[in-house]
Amino acid sequence: MLHTAAHHDGVADRVAIEEPLEIRVGGAALAITMRTPGHDEELAVGFLVSEGLIAAGPAATGPPPDLTANVVEVESELLRTPDARRFYATSSCGICGKGALEEVAVLAAPLPPAADGPQVERGLLAALPGRLEQPGFAATGGLHATGLFTPAGQALLVREDVGRHNAMDKVIGRRALDDALPLHGLVLCVSGRLSFELVQKAVVAGAAVLVGAGAPTSLAIALAAERGLTLAGFARGVRVNVYSAPERVTG
Amino acid sequence: MLHTAAHHDGVADRVAIEEPLEIRVGGAALAITMRTPGHDEELAVGFLVSEGLIAAGPAATGPPPDLTANVVEVESELLRTPDARRFYATSSCGICGKGALEEVAVLAAPLPPAADGPQVERGLLAALPGRLEQPGFAATGGLHATGLFTPAGQALLVREDVGRHNAMDKVIGRRALDDALPLHGLVLCVSGRLSFELVQKAVVAGAAVLVGAGAPTSLAIALAAERGLTLAGFARGVRVNVYSAPERVTG
Repeated sequence: MLHTAAHHDGVADRVAIEEPLEIRVGGAALAITMRTPGHDEELAVGFLVSEGLIAAGPAATGPPPDLTANVVEVESELLRTPDARRFYATSSCGICGKGALEEVAVLAAPLPPAADGPQVERGLLAALPGRLEQPGFAATGGLHATGLFTPAGQALLVREDVGRHNAMDKVIGRRALDDALPLHGLVLCVSGRLSFELVQKAVVAGAAVLVGAGAPTSLAIALAAERGLTLAGFARGVRVNVYSAPERVTG
Repeated sequence: MLHTAAHHDGVADRVAIEEPLEIRVGGAALAITMRTPGHDEELAVGFLVSEGLIAAGPAATGPPPDLTANVVEVESELLRTPDARRFYATSSCGICGKGALEEVAVLAAPLPPAADGPQVERGLLAALPGRLEQPGFAATGGLHATGLFTPAGQALLVREDVGRHNAMDKVIGRRALDDALPLHGLVLCVSGRLSFELVQKAVVAGAAVLVGAGAPTSLAIALAAERGLTLAGFARGVRVNVYSAPERVTG
């Protein structure tokens, strides 16, 4: 969703739209996220699933979303209450990276062993971010993208958003609405950097492989390694670095 | 703060460290943010000030931060309780961009009129993101930076973090700890995109000018225009786009 804004050289830029969205479950407001309008039900459901707030079964959203209202109501049972004091319940060492890893372990079912596939060819992995169709980014320079691909490189779904986490939530939410989680045999691909939060979402959705054009963080690598997710970064056409579970990468 | 991780080509990458930090006020945990360790007191104080949770006077942090504990205690009076249902109190139209703008208006004192300065030369503005010293980014490709500059282009302070908001919070927090807010005569400069949240932080800290190497969003432009902040994007050496309050840009 785009928008035209004049800047002061007499040139009209197209800029990425950013608006708040309130996510409600059972009538209670759980979160507000700044997002690019469009695919709001997907975003709400994907956020709730990937944060471990609702189960990953088919989710029913309430009244059809009204874009001017910027509210999505999700009819589902809450598994837990969101809390600023995350990482506490399962942490054996106070607040630290270890506690964060343990929390995700509670939220995410184990992946199938890497030996059961999928396998992705290294050259394809390196090229995947370049295959993300990003009409919004092309127009505005201000959107992140997440795509869902088969191991053979076929794009199943691409979503864009001003927030990198929102783009991934929209993909996960679409699959949740289609009752098509977990993403076991599939590859998630992001246009940018690889943070802990993105790896968490990929792991909770059950993806086997996560690849991005940008750099991973230390805790992103640690989480991917612990959960057996294949994490690949700096995928820019020819080269790609594989940081965990390399058994899924061939060639 | 860097970290060395092997990837599976036999090459050791230096990756950006990401760890959770818990921010406490009066003994109560208010927020957890994923950040790059270092300058944790600055981050905690800058977050609390720029979110309007504590006043922008001199803030005292508690016991010296223990990096392994990942907790910062701030001794200050809370102005309000953080709430997922932001944008409600001041919104006349339910949840929407207008409500978000109104909320920031409550948090931020007015800027001095643009006629009172500062003035920044256009070519300097375009070059400013290139002047951000980013040793962490150079090593890892995984860090964002925020710098504080004089209108003549002198760097006063640069901070890096895996989170773009954290980098700006660290700069604002340093100034709060030095009792050197608001930033009226100064220029904030970021290495990436310009979201609503970054403009909010700049406005609450009282900066006159915010420039970034990346794209602004629609709501970032709307907020900057309403509050009289000079917002400039796509600053990549030679060119720069000015989206609001162009009176502060010369040449």
